[in-house]
Amino acid sequence: MAVETLYRSSRDLERLFMDKAEADAYDKMLELAEHLTAVFHKAVPSLKEEQAEELGIYVARHREVFAKAFGKKPEVLADLLDGKTAEEG
Amino acid sequence: MAVETLYRSSRDLERLFMDKAEADAYDKMLELAEHLTAVFHKAVPSLKEEQAEELGIYVARHREVFAKAFGKKPEVLADLLDGKTAEEG
Repeated sequence: MAVETLYRSSRDLERLFMDKAEADAYDKMLELAEHLTAVFHKAVPSLKEEQAEELGIYVARHREVFAKAFGKKPEVLADLLDGKTAEEG
Repeated sequence: MAVETLYRSSRDLERLFMDKAEADAYDKMLELAEHLTAVFHKAVPSLKEEQAEELGIYVARHREVFAKAFGKKPEVLADLLDGKTAEEG
């Protein structure tokens, strides 16, 4: 019998990782999603809680595309529309 | 009588500018807002049109804060929550 080390984010107890770096990246994404959800809710109070959460998670998961879009290349958002961007973790 | 040159974005015929660079920046922000509105709508289909538009404009107007948040400093989003960020454009 061997003991294995597992990792998970305190923000999502369901999801287990064998790799710590992956768990860290996932936790960072969930943290960003939480911040975004709060900001979206403040910006558009008529948003339902789950809409703001869904948006927060979506934007956090595609943060690289949004970072590029807010930098020099707004057109990269078109890739999100044609679903060209891989669904990250 | 003197003739003055004015500028405006084809995306918002109401808003006139004396300075071309300002008009360009405003037009670029509206273009980004349009892209974002389409992406948000695709990400969360239950969003109403005006909610997706309101969000698109809000995020486009604060694009620098979001660019930083998606880079190294997610905590800058907290400034948006305490309303510390000036209302640009």
